[in-house]
Amino acid sequence: MKLHFVAALLGCALVSSPTLAQGQYRNTDNTNLGDAGEGTYPIPYKKPVVAEVTAQLQAIRAFMDRATPTRIVSKRTGQPITDLKKPSADAIFEKSAGDYGIQVYEMGVVHSGLLKAAQVTKDPGFTAMTKRHFAFFAETLPYFRAQEQQFKLERGNSFSRFLDPRSLDDAGSMCAALMRARAAKVGPDLKPMIDTCSDWVAKRQFRLDDGTMARKRPQEVSLWADDMYMSIPALAEMGRLTGERAYFDDAVANVMGMSSRMFNPQLGLYTHGWHANHPEAPRFYWARANGWAVLAMSDLLDVLPKDHPGYPKVLAQLRASLKGIAELQSGSGLWHQMIDRNDSYLETSASAIFTYVFAHAVNEGWVSPTTYGSIAQTGWNALSTRITALGQVEGTCVGTTLAGDMVYYYNRPTSVDALHGYGPMLLAGAEIIRLVTNPAFEVQHKVRTYHYMPKGGQTDYREHH
Amino acid sequence: MKLHFVAALLGCALVSSPTLAQGQYRNTDNTNLGDAGEGTYPIPYKKPVVAEVTAQLQAIRAFMDRATPTRIVSKRTGQPITDLKKPSADAIFEKSAGDYGIQVYEMGVVHSGLLKAAQVTKDPGFTAMTKRHFAFFAETLPYFRAQEQQFKLERGNSFSRFLDPRSLDDAGSMCAALMRARAAKVGPDLKPMIDTCSDWVAKRQFRLDDGTMARKRPQEVSLWADDMYMSIPALAEMGRLTGERAYFDDAVANVMGMSSRMFNPQLGLYTHGWHANHPEAPRFYWARANGWAVLAMSDLLDVLPKDHPGYPKVLAQLRASLKGIAELQSGSGLWHQMIDRNDSYLETSASAIFTYVFAHAVNEGWVSPTTYGSIAQTGWNALSTRITALGQVEGTCVGTTLAGDMVYYYNRPTSVDALHGYGPMLLAGAEIIRLVTNPAFEVQHKVRTYHYMPKGGQTDYREHH
Amino acid sequence: MKLHFVAALLGCALVSSPTLAQGQYRNTDNTNLGDAGEGTYPIPYKKPVVAEVTAQLQAIRAFMDRATPTRIVSKRTGQPITDLKKPSADAIFEKSAGDYGIQVYEMGVVHSGLLKAAQVTKDPGFTAMTKRHFAFFAETLPYFRAQEQQFKLERGNSFSRFLDPRSLDDAGSMCAALMRARAAKVGPDLKPMIDTCSDWVAKRQFRLDDGTMARKRPQEVSLWADDMYMSIPALAEMGRLTGERAYFDDAVANVMGMSSRMFNPQLGLYTHGWHANHPEAPRFYWARANGWAVLAMSDLLDVLPKDHPGYPKVLAQLRASLKGIAELQSGSGLWHQMIDRNDSYLETSASAIFTYVFAHAVNEGWVSPTTYGSIAQTGWNALSTRITALGQVEGTCVGTTLAGDMVYYYNRPTSVDALHGYGPMLLAGAEIIRLVTNPAFEVQHKVRTYHYMPKGGQTDYREHH
Repeated sequence: MKLHFVAALLGCALVSSPTLAQGQYRNTDNTNLGDAGEGTYPIPYKKPVVAEVTAQLQAIRAFMDRATPTRIVSKRTGQPITDLKKPSADAIFEKSAGDYGIQVYEMGVVHSGLLKAAQVTKDPGFTAMTKRHFAFFAETLPYFRAQEQQFKLERGNSFSRFLDPRSLDDAGSMCAALMRARAAKVGPDLKPMIDTCSDWVAKRQFRLDDGTMARKRPQEVSLWADDMYMSIPALAEMGRLTGERAYFDDAVANVMGMSSRMFNPQLGLYTHGWHANHPEAPRFYWARANGWAVLAMSDLLDVLPKDHPGYPKVLAQLRASLKGIAELQSGSGLWHQMIDRNDSYLETSASAIFTYVFAHAVNEGWVSPTTYGSIAQTGWNALSTRITALGQVEGTCVGTTLAGDMVYYYNRPTSVDALHGYGPMLLAGAEIIRLVTNPAFEVQHKVRTYHYMPKGGQTDYREHH
Repeated sequence: MKLHFVAALLGCALVSSPTLAQGQYRNTDNTNLGDAGEGTYPIPYKKPVVAEVTAQLQAIRAFMDRATPTRIVSKRTGQPITDLKKPSADAIFEKSAGDYGIQVYEMGVVHSGLLKAAQVTKDPGFTAMTKRHFAFFAETLPYFRAQEQQFKLERGNSFSRFLDPRSLDDAGSMCAALMRARAAKVGPDLKPMIDTCSDWVAKRQFRLDDGTMARKRPQEVSLWADDMYMSIPALAEMGRLTGERAYFDDAVANVMGMSSRMFNPQLGLYTHGWHANHPEAPRFYWARANGWAVLAMSDLLDVLPKDHPGYPKVLAQLRASLKGIAELQSGSGLWHQMIDRNDSYLETSASAIFTYVFAHAVNEGWVSPTTYGSIAQTGWNALSTRITALGQVEGTCVGTTLAGDMVYYYNRPTSVDALHGYGPMLLAGAEIIRLVTNPAFEVQHKVRTYHYMPKGGQTDYREHH
Repeated sequence: MKLHFVAALLGCALVSSPTLAQGQYRNTDNTNLGDAGEGTYPIPYKKPVVAEVTAQLQAIRAFMDRATPTRIVSKRTGQPITDLKKPSADAIFEKSAGDYGIQVYEMGVVHSGLLKAAQVTKDPGFTAMTKRHFAFFAETLPYFRAQEQQFKLERGNSFSRFLDPRSLDDAGSMCAALMRARAAKVGPDLKPMIDTCSDWVAKRQFRLDDGTMARKRPQEVSLWADDMYMSIPALAEMGRLTGERAYFDDAVANVMGMSSRMFNPQLGLYTHGWHANHPEAPRFYWARANGWAVLAMSDLLDVLPKDHPGYPKVLAQLRASLKGIAELQSGSGLWHQMIDRNDSYLETSASAIFTYVFAHAVNEGWVSPTTYGSIAQTGWNALSTRITALGQVEGTCVGTTLAGDMVYYYNRPTSVDALHGYGPMLLAGAEIIRLVTNPAFEVQHKVRTYHYMPKGGQTDYREHH
């Protein structure tokens, strides 16, 4: 057994006895270099500095921008196609090095993150890429529609998600981003695309009898916790766009329908999926699915009228989820791929979503700054180590299906090409800037740690020697 | 502290931050060698191949066969004793290199595994050893009975377990195997041995007042979850053999009596044991004890009449246990020595029992193939790495008593001489062959993982880009 | 990523697959050196030997004694001040190398441990340091009182905790120790100090409306589980000293008030703290806080009249806590810094408190020796490796505040200068001596492990081959 060899090499007690290791970071907010009560940390342990967060967000923005061409090329030759009058069967969106699809659901999160970063930093440069992509969509939609009518390429048509959507992955996330950009007056009005994708989400997606969004894979009738994000934000944004209450009703009903089947209230966690043919199946608490669930609820609360009867239900469900997630943050600030399994790897995208939602929920007053503030802060501290100087995001699990065994989940590769990490990282950084500049509370550095103290709260440290 | 030294040697974050490692296996069912979405695995990750499983079972069978002599020898000289007319005080069963007792309870599981392998593969060669052992028992029983009458050797008599059984370990597992072989018409009719062992199990074993099988060790009145296997299958087989309902009643009552005291319904796990003098003691979820519990229930359901009032109770109890066990499968397919402790070692025998019961329960229709199919499959994938080319089974915890501290359980040695792993491995492999050839469902390899799909189920992958 | 490099260096499966390692200890109670069923251990696995435990306690006692000077010196020059007639603003208690404050709460535990060791071993040498310190207090109290009246140094006055206490940390633990020494007639009568500190605890500490002891940090109204120890033993000892029932009532009410807010009955654990402004906050199961909680209840039960209506409530609460703690003992005998997190380091002080309370609760008949006896024994086995030849205690987490993130807790440094480990270690060792010499039960070494068997219990090992 190879394992025995390695263990022998390392000495007896390594594996079963974690020990305190020498971290590479010292808290720079503690200026007493000889403080015997101060530890070292595997991540920066400090109050995030706005300029540093902003610089990292700029690096990601710049990387995304240069990694996502918006050109039509020949699939065969790679040469640009500029004549948009006559469709060619060979015309496709130019692919990027990392294969970052410009209409995929992950890119919807990137646009939402860029819009948030622009809003928080007041730097309109953050939305330059959104403008460029969306202008390209406006410009090329007629071309690809004509291509489809003439050549029937189906999934081979680069614009297929917005000509002929077939799944929530195709439609929901980008749809929400399109509506957010429109509300923020960023880019052209893409109402035709919004009509197509919202029609799919609201009216054409396969559902359970009670209206809960479902899929016909991997089993005949399956729910995916991921689909909370792939549907609820789009429904919520449609509610905002149209003022029609029915969209909000549907969004709330989906929070409830999904949660009643996939949320474990003992743990405060979502299992990745649910099958109608085996409702009592063993559960797999995949971190990113929990991320999509809480992000969906957070996005819904952003626009759900406070007087909607679903508002307190969604808020209670978000709070229950956040408590479960918070209690599983690792000792190095991130969360594990299987969120309840500390021998699975630390995963970036889920950690970024959680960090965003914790910070956002504090900033919006949905949860207390006490405890959740420092959890968000340490989440960001850890995430900051996963952004390279080139603006790439490391440690994100690649696209992952709803599976039925732990071996699959534990061994999903991570990649800087996994687009799932970029949007959440932009959201997290932007919201952290709001957090550490939020006038509603004070971030106190006391006795070597951080306390998010509601403004006006009176403490008494005089007793402390 | 040695630990500090090791940690310093390895760098800061090793211990507390598991990271995604490069596994040595790639899924051979995925023929796209450049697939960026495919990971590597610490175990083979693939649909088990019948010929490969069969070959590994043959290797185990051959090893067991050559490792278990059936001869009488002189304890003093080691020389064979062939004159069976006149008993010698010095005569014993010849010992094997690994000290694999031919009448111990672990060997009962081996025979049950060989019978199952013969039945599934249709290869009668699997039961050659069973025939040989059992013929030897038929031949030598009178000799050792005479030896006992003359010399009163008690536990020193090699045949003592079937002349003068004193515990469930002596009697139950081999008793069930003897009855199974008899039902399958393998070997001679050993009714005299069956009478002795079944009499012990049904009538003479120490019990609680309510009839639950108990022991006078390590405390004055203790239950062992292991004793579910040491009693229930024998009672169940007696029910089948005799047609007397009382045996089934007793078997069912023991499932309930054991479970009411040792099963934790929150976790879906059995604690190793229970003491009448401390019913609320802290619990130790030793994996193999959980294995014996679910194997006992599975064996009972195999022969329990469906109209017995206990049938739905036993089935519900088995399902609750399997769910708890399934949720603790490790990311490398096996289960841990302490099933709820991921810093204890990965143990083979328990993992093999679990894999058998998952696969068997799916094949018998007791649980859904959805999820449990892939759990059994990855269990086998991992187990396959623990069978050497010589047919030895690695990584099995040696015989382990009911203890009262974690230090004991964590540090039990593993050994290829631990017979506890062999029978379960035979059972697991045989049942996996049934699983992957079961016509009731289809094993789909989709999006880099496996889905056990009930036949006729309609999926829709057209949406997947 | 550095982590990827390390993992690559070490081979594939190290991190996610714990394996059975070769321990450096063999059980010396097993004289069969060739026993294939015997394992090796990362700690000594044996019945503790009284002479060895005593020798280790002596080493700690001697270290504490030489590490705690009792002199007044000039803060400026370090030179002794011997004229106690005229106060100098510059006069302070001489500091020790490890900065072991002679009036801090941790030193209260040391004195309680020394008193216990003297009582158990009958060696009055254990209390020599207590006598010396307390005589020094009696001698210098008037001097520092005069210094304070003249110079108003506040926290800069070395005697400030007993001139002007301001917190439970200042008052409770030392107060209990002063009363215990007085009851044992060790050292001078320090009634004036007892009056000051008991007045603070009983009457002046900030509390919730229902009387539960609280702090105005880190939030405006916070509870600390640690404060169970900082208040309840002092109240209990005041009850014993004065015979006034009100002190016991207050102590019991604080057990209940603290537990109702910080005890998780599902897990049997205390969260470190609670904030009135966020009562449903995520929980941090810091081990030492759980130690203070159970030590406080144990100390209370030592003196609480058995007919007090709170007695059964406190006993039930202690039992529930001990069960939760017991189930989380690590496979190497100690407990983890975050008691429910096996990837946090193994922490000495909490482990020592737990070991003491388990052993004491068994010895007092509050819990069964079955299981709890062997848990205490292995706790001590492990602790014994953390005492150096010089009598220093290794692996203790330094002073730790009530924080709001896991990164802080996981990365608290350990130090031999952390006084928190010394008192608990003395308590644990003394109580282990009582345990292994307790006539109420027998410590049986059977089948390679240990069973604490109530005297008169009948077992039957004849069946065991």
